Amino acid sequence: MSNIPAIGFAAYSGTGKTTLLEKLVALLKADGLRVAVIKHDSHGFQMDREGKDTWRFGQAGADMTLISSPYQVAVIEYRPRSFEENLTMIHDVDLILVEGYKQEEIPRIGICRKATGKGLPGSPEDYVALVTDDEDLAASTAVPCFGLDDAENIARFVKDIAGL
Amino acid sequence: MSNIPAIGFAAYSGTGKTTLLEKLVALLKADGLRVAVIKHDSHGFQMDREGKDTWRFGQAGADMTLISSPYQVAVIEYRPRSFEENLTMIHDVDLILVEGYKQEEIPRIGICRKATGKGLPGSPEDYVALVTDDEDLAASTAVPCFGLDDAENIARFVKDIAGL
Repeated sequence: MSNIPAIGFAAYSGTGKTTLLEKLVALLKADGLRVAVIKHDSHGFQMDREGKDTWRFGQAGADMTLISSPYQVAVIEYRPRSFEENLTMIHDVDLILVEGYKQEEIPRIGICRKATGKGLPGSPEDYVALVTDDEDLAASTAVPCFGLDDAENIARFVKDIAGL
Repeated sequence: MSNIPAIGFAAYSGTGKTTLLEKLVALLKADGLRVAVIKHDSHGFQMDREGKDTWRFGQAGADMTLISSPYQVAVIEYRPRSFEENLTMIHDVDLILVEGYKQEEIPRIGICRKATGKGLPGSPEDYVALVTDDEDLAASTAVPCFGLDDAENIARFVKDIAGL
C-alpha cells in the first residue's frame, strides 16, 4: 500500500461528483498541494486514438506503451490492474482523490443530490463525511455533512483527514 | 536505471520506423516475451480527450490522473519527465523498445530508407546494427546490417543483445 493519503468519493451518477472533484483539485492545488486523481471506469475507456503510434503498439501486442513529451507523459498498460497496483504508479503527490473503487478500505466521502432520486450508496456511516442537499439525510446522521456547493470546506475537511 | 533491457531505434521520419516496431512487438510477443514501447514525442501530444474526466482533472490542475478499467490502465502526468524517470513507470516486461531518445546511452539500431534521401542519423558506428536498403551504406561498415523487411532476423538480433 502506498503511503500517500487516498480519499474516496462515492455517489450514484448525476450527482456532480466529477465537478466536485475538479473544484477540490483546483482548491487543493491553490493551497500548494500536489494532487493525483484515480478513477475506476467499469465500462472501459479508449485512451489512445486509432492510428496513433501508441494505439498501433497496443494493437501489435505491447504490454505497455509510454509516450513522453515536453508537456506530459502518458503510460498505457493493456491489462486490468488492482487498486494497490495502480497506487504504485502514483508518485510525487501529497494526496490522491479516488473515484469509483467501492471495495477499497480508504476513507470515503459520500455524495447525494436529492434531485437524482437515487439517495446515497450504502448508509451514512460508511462515510467519513457526506456532501448533500438532502436535509433529512443530513439530520439523520452524526457524520459531518457539507452542502453540494461547499467545496472550500470540503477541501479543508479532506486536508484534515489526510493529515495535511 | 531500470534493469529491464532497453533497445533504441533511430531514424529520420518516413523510414517506416513505427511499422518496424509494430512488427518487432508482434514477433517478440509471439516468442512469449513481454514488451513495452517508450516513445519520445518532441512535438507534444494530446492523450486525454477534451471533456473527458481525465482531461477535466488535468485542466483543474491535477499533477497525475489514472484511469483504470477491466481492460487497461492509463496514467497521465502533466509535466516533463526524464528518460530515467520514465523507465521507473515500466514494469513486468522483459524488454523495452525505445523510439526517439537520441541522447540516452542505450544500444541503438539505426534505420535508413534510401528513398527518403535523408540517410542515417549520425554514423553507422553509433549503432549496434543498421536496418537499411542502402547497399552502399551496408557495404561501408562492419556493423551488422538487416534489410527493411527482415523483421524476423531483427527480432532475433534484438533478443540477442538484450540477453533474452
